[in-house]
Parts: sequence; structure tokens; C-alpha cells
Amino acid sequence: MTPTIAIVAPGAMGSALARRLTESGARVLTSLEGRGPESRRRAGAAGMEAADDATIVTEADILLSIVPPSEALDLARRFAGAIARAGRGPVFVDANAVGVDTVTAADELVSTAGGRFVDGAIIGLPPRPGETGPVLYLSGPHAGAVAALSGLGLRLRTIDGPVGAASALKLSYAGITKGLTAVATAMILAAERAGAGDALRAELAASQPALLSRFAATLPDMVPKAYRWVAEMEAIRDFVGTGFPESAIYDGAAGLYRRIAADRQGAGAEIAALDRFLAGGGQN
Amino acid sequence: MTPTIAIVAPGAMGSALARRLTESGARVLTSLEGRGPESRRRAGAAGMEAADDATIVTEADILLSIVPPSEALDLARRFAGAIARAGRGPVFVDANAVGVDTVTAADELVSTAGGRFVDGAIIGLPPRPGETGPVLYLSGPHAGAVAALSGLGLRLRTIDGPVGAASALKLSYAGITKGLTAVATAMILAAERAGAGDALRAELAASQPALLSRFAATLPDMVPKAYRWVAEMEAIRDFVGTGFPESAIYDGAAGLYRRIAADRQGAGAEIAALDRFLAGGGQN
Repeated sequence: MTPTIAIVAPGAMGSALARRLTESGARVLTSLEGRGPESRRRAGAAGMEAADDATIVTEADILLSIVPPSEALDLARRFAGAIARAGRGPVFVDANAVGVDTVTAADELVSTAGGRFVDGAIIGLPPRPGETGPVLYLSGPHAGAVAALSGLGLRLRTIDGPVGAASALKLSYAGITKGLTAVATAMILAAERAGAGDALRAELAASQPALLSRFAATLPDMVPKAYRWVAEMEAIRDFVGTGFPESAIYDGAAGLYRRIAADRQGAGAEIAALDRFLAGGGQN
Repeated sequence: MTPTIAIVAPGAMGSALARRLTESGARVLTSLEGRGPESRRRAGAAGMEAADDATIVTEADILLSIVPPSEALDLARRFAGAIARAGRGPVFVDANAVGVDTVTAADELVSTAGGRFVDGAIIGLPPRPGETGPVLYLSGPHAGAVAALSGLGLRLRTIDGPVGAASALKLSYAGITKGLTAVATAMILAAERAGAGDALRAELAASQPALLSRFAATLPDMVPKAYRWVAEMEAIRDFVGTGFPESAIYDGAAGLYRRIAADRQGAGAEIAALDRFLAGGGQN
């Protein structure tokens, strides 16, 4: 029988994965507790059914937690309570961009309540029609319990490791890709301040064309997401461990993304400098 | 008449550029003051003539300062003194990986002594036979005075900017390329500590193959140079300015490279972890 899946919350990623599942014939529950009309609309468009927590823990076989990093532990606590009250529950997959400490604490809450916990990590963008979609990495002793998702249109990869391994993968991967974007943003802004932006672009075009092409796509993509990346950079700093001096790289990246997010709400001078740099190819 | 060039000191870069110049028919002077037998050997092999400072400032038309960043200002001071005593001197090109403040201070010393100063920046590796070699960027009002070098086998590019613009280019370019290497090193080591190294490599191979190929070349190349990159990262931090939170990225990179340099002299555990990661393709 096709399993029932719960996805909380119906954000951009959650509802896009839900649509894959409902198109594959699965019943997908969600919670609209504390969510606005946009979530309600997305949930409906993806074919999700709104349900209360007691219904979710009673009827769902698998629950995917997909929320902003700062809400991940609260959601695990909330469903651990519901699982304890119901005396049963779905396999709880924490698929959030949180640190190893957070996912370990969430495991503790869910397991103590009698539930089964899986560490998950989504790498890639929300799936769109015709695209293969992101990969859901899984780790921990119960990772095999969610294998059914691969028959429902999701791409799964299981890591041979404990709870924490999937999160470590997500953090280290994001630390490379979003760390590179931070390094590029920091240096382009500094070069522009020093009047060396055109020379930097010319040298990159001559000797690092692949990087320059990458920046032309990744920097504009970063600007509207910078506010969300602050907490992710701080999670990566904690993942490195402040005993290692390189953790400061991610303190710096968090501060930069905070600055870009504020600039987007404010004067826009930094974003204009990035745009000028990327558009300036003809000015040399 | 073919100009006389001085290059101080005859390190790997200096002697490789000198060889280009002597092969093009130029007379190249150098100073062996305080240098060991290896410098003497390299200088001889490149066709350089050893000379004292008084001879250099009297006979050279152009002097290229190519020393470790920490020695750049002392060399400018030393030749400013020689120029003042001789009442003449070559155009002094500071081609070192130093910050804008340092190159501005060097300009002040040389100009006050009556000399002409050019900000220079070398991007690329020492030239080898058959290769085009690195580019020497130049900025400042006297940049045109060293144009003769382009007829002697060196690749020159003049930046339309003051003293400091060429250094800003060098720092921002190195901040991107060596910053990316730092980000990759930090995340590979953290993933290896968490047991997620194999998963990270597999995900990079699937979704970021160009970056993974790059790391296979740049990380092993970094290890023996890490000790030199510490001061360069600190210069980039100062170039960004500690008033900008992203300057912490380069504090973190400096700390990481210091740690790698110490590991190379010591236990070698970090370098072994990097090697394991890069060699591990067959273990998935």
C-alpha cells in the first residue's frame, strides 16, 4: 500500500517535494499551524491535506521536517510530544540545514518519545517539472525505513554513518558552494572600493573564466537568499568548531550575508556594486 | 639602447623573470646581500650580475622588488636611502603581494628620496620555457616608465589607477583563488572529522565536478606554500578593512594556512586527511 507522508511545513521546498509525492499517488499531509495564506495556497496546489498534529502522528508513515534552521529543534520537540501522546508515530526525518549538535538533540527528543529518527539533508533546488530534483541524503540506523520515498519520485542517497553524517555532508557542501560565493562577494566589493574592479574582472576573464561565469549566476542568486544564509553560515562555523581557527571564515561569511541582506532592505549600494562588476564586461 | 634592469631578490620568481630578460638581451643586476648559496646559484643560472646597492641605483633603469611580503617595506627603505645618497636611481617597482597601506608607505619612502615609484603586482606562476609566463600589472603615475620591459619578454598590463590599484587587484584576485582553496580545505577537513568525507566527494563529483577537479590540483599545490600564504591572507584581511565583517574570512584563512604549515612540519595528520579525501574516488 502506498504510504502516507507528512511534510511540515509547506514552504517552497516542502510543497515542491509534496507535489512529486502526490503525483506519484501518495497521500501527503501537512500542518498549517501558524502559517499564512501563501502556505495554504502552496499546500493546496501541491495536493497536500491539512491535518492536526494528532492526525499526522497517527496516520503518517514518514514525516519530513523542512523548516528554517532556527525552527528545526522546536518542530522536533512538538512532534516528539505528539508521538508520546499518541503512542505511535511516523519515522521523523529532519531534513533541515542544521548543525550536527542540533540534529543530535532532535534525535534525542524523538527517540525518547518512542519515535524513530533519521538525519536528512536536501542538496539541490526545489524540483520543477521535467527536472530530476534535489537529492535527499539520509543517515542513521533508521535510514532504511524511508526507502519507500524513492518509489514516489524522490531521489534518495543513504550515507553509511550515524545521525549527524547527512547533516555534516550538507554543511560541508554548503560551506564550499556558499563559502565560494562569500569569498567572491567580499573580494569584488573590496576591489570595487579600491577602484580595481574592472582590472579584477579582466584578469578573471583571462585566467579564471569558469569562476567568473559561475559568479555571474551565483551572486545575483545569493542576494535575495542572503538573509537565510546567515544562520546557515553560523551552523557551519559551529560544525567546524570554534577550536579550529578556520571557523572564523564562516563568521565572516555570516557577517557578509547579514550585510547584504540589510543592504537589500536599505540603500542597495553593495548590491549595485556587485551588479556593476558583473555587467561591466564592455567597459574595459 | 637596451635598459639595465635590477631584480632584488633572486628568488624563484625573481630569477625566472631575470632569465626572460637576459635571454632578451638585457643586463640584469641583483643584490646577494644576506642571501644564501641557493640564491647565488639561481642568480648565476639566470645570467644575473651581483652588484652592491650603490652600483644598482647608479646603473639600473628599472628595479623590480620581488621579496616575501614581510620584507617589502624594508627593501623600499634600503633603496630609498641608496637613491638619496646617489642623487639618482632606477624606477622602483614594488611587485610584492602587500597591502595598499604598505605600497603607499613604500611610495612615500622612495618618492621622498627623489625616486620614481610604481605599484606592481605579479599574477601567475614563475615563467618556464615555452610558457607565456605571469602578468606584471602596473599602476601609478610612473607606470609608463617601465614599458620597456614588454620588449624584453615580460607581459605587462597597466591599470588606469593610482599607486595601490595594482596591489588591490593582486589582493582581490588572490583572495578569490586562495580563499576558495581555504574554504575547500576547511570543509574537507571538517567533513573528514565527521565521517562525511566520502559522501562529500561523491556529491561534489555529481554536482560540482569542475570544483572537485580544481581542488585535486590546488590543494596539493597549497600545502608547501601554506607558510607563505599566512601573511598574504593577513594582507587581504587588512585590504578588506576590519570595519567590514567579511574581513574575518581572511583571518580564518590565515589561521588555517598557519595550521597546515605547522602540520607539514609536524604530525601531518591534516595533510593526510586531505590526501585521503582526494585519492578516495574508488572507495565509494
